[in-house]
Amino acid sequence: MDYDVIIVGGGPAGLSASVYARRANLRTAVIEKLTFGGIITTTDLIENYLGFPAISGADFGKAIQEHAMKYEPDMIQAEVKRVSQVEGGFSVETDSGTFTSKTVIVASGAAPRKLNVPGEAELFGRGVSTCATCDGPFFAKKDVAVVGGGDSALSEGIYLSRLVNKIYLIHRRDQLRAEPILQQRFTGLPNVEFVWNSVVTRIEGEKHVTGILVKNVKTGEERKIDVSAVFVYVGEVPQTDFVDVKKDDHGYIITDENMQSSVPGIFAAGDCRHSLSKQAIISAGEGALAAIAAQMLLEKRLIPQQNA
Amino acid sequence: MDYDVIIVGGGPAGLSASVYARRANLRTAVIEKLTFGGIITTTDLIENYLGFPAISGADFGKAIQEHAMKYEPDMIQAEVKRVSQVEGGFSVETDSGTFTSKTVIVASGAAPRKLNVPGEAELFGRGVSTCATCDGPFFAKKDVAVVGGGDSALSEGIYLSRLVNKIYLIHRRDQLRAEPILQQRFTGLPNVEFVWNSVVTRIEGEKHVTGILVKNVKTGEERKIDVSAVFVYVGEVPQTDFVDVKKDDHGYIITDENMQSSVPGIFAAGDCRHSLSKQAIISAGEGALAAIAAQMLLEKRLIPQQNA
Repeated sequence: MDYDVIIVGGGPAGLSASVYARRANLRTAVIEKLTFGGIITTTDLIENYLGFPAISGADFGKAIQEHAMKYEPDMIQAEVKRVSQVEGGFSVETDSGTFTSKTVIVASGAAPRKLNVPGEAELFGRGVSTCATCDGPFFAKKDVAVVGGGDSALSEGIYLSRLVNKIYLIHRRDQLRAEPILQQRFTGLPNVEFVWNSVVTRIEGEKHVTGILVKNVKTGEERKIDVSAVFVYVGEVPQTDFVDVKKDDHGYIITDENMQSSVPGIFAAGDCRHSLSKQAIISAGEGALAAIAAQMLLEKRLIPQQNA
Repeated sequence: MDYDVIIVGGGPAGLSASVYARRANLRTAVIEKLTFGGIITTTDLIENYLGFPAISGADFGKAIQEHAMKYEPDMIQAEVKRVSQVEGGFSVETDSGTFTSKTVIVASGAAPRKLNVPGEAELFGRGVSTCATCDGPFFAKKDVAVVGGGDSALSEGIYLSRLVNKIYLIHRRDQLRAEPILQQRFTGLPNVEFVWNSVVTRIEGEKHVTGILVKNVKTGEERKIDVSAVFVYVGEVPQTDFVDVKKDDHGYIITDENMQSSVPGIFAAGDCRHSLSKQAIISAGEGALAAIAAQMLLEKRLIPQQNA
């Protein structure tokens, strides 16, 4: 076996797991396909991770990556294709080689859900975005649409409002579901028009976005809105296709209270795990717990739980 | 009802819960009997809370307290005596008055376990201590005993070794159970004598500690060791007597995966909760989750779990 534990994903869950695994002297690899620090590094402002009253996603990502690297895990930039059981552990196949490990912690997070409407794929990166912090500055003084009503939509909308001329907030319901503090701040903005009970049916433009077609789900009425960009925040899809363990209907991995999946030796932590709420501080706690449980399993002192 | 949520305990679990509860606009009180920041503020060095590669307990306590205070919960200095169910919620009786709340989050932590030997109570604060960071400097260049073999014993022992002349590490087993990284560091110290398979049977001294009587549990042999201080790290006792909910045999509160106890509306988070491991980062995650779950219960959208 190459490793005692392979951690799939380098966000808060994966890096917290890595800190604990390395402090326990486990031979540890963290495999990340995009950015070490995780998708949270694209957030404008983090205010609810205890200990950091206000920190940018980029700075937070840097801090947690440096923390993990202090203990020198193998940091592997690769995409995991398949996790399979082998004698004595698991084989983790990636696009840069195959590694073996006695245990695996899946901390692979969730990717932004797509609208799946005409124009979205064609214009992605040319006005269609899932990262206001990355792409917002390109649309200074322009009109843009934000799609969604949750934490991400409002949090990133607040950021955008300082840059752009006007935001159309397109939401399929007639009320927001974000944290109340975000709702208050967002509804207090001077340059927002709410488009309630509405979904985007088409994104228009040739070389770049020029507008969206929006349909009111109650009246059936359609409306065209001229915008230069569409920021899409309509939920997440867990990144768990590469592993065969018990999952819920949406693909989130179901674990016991010690983060162990239905397959002994495979653990899950963070946004890819079935749970009530996805938050960086919760992910970091789950990652730590998963590493402690993996260590105890390797030492044959983890008592199996009943509820997996 | 005075509050939407009363949080009992102001450590990492309680303060993280407070950040989330206040961001959700809940009328929130945090009741703490000792130090806001929690018992972790007495730790010399914290290295495993993701985002802080190395921070003193005191600085960490300051950081998390300031974070919580940004959202202005009521911070009440008092000891909770009793939580009882009343019409529409709970009554929380303290030594500084009684408050009512729709929900309660118990984040009251755990207190150091006592040795329960002659001399311990009489000499507490006069050589008997459970806080090396607080009391270690009084014993510079002296010989001291540290009792225990877990994370706290070794972590605080490492700190003490820089101050004192010699440490006797008294442990009832023949091997340590602390994190491997702490074991390595501790066993590498030049001024430690291990006293294995041994328990303290008496602490001696009149005005202050002068020595301990130690018994080998395998041979029955007794030995007197001259020391000026005894630092006791033999586990914790959860602080949960004031609330009637389902607990394990040691008094830790049993919850479902959303941190709700056997009594709907009472949640638990952190070191007072039944779980695999007690760590600040895990506590902070649990506190956040408990507050989110409490908010959802108040909004009547928390689906009850089965495993409580």
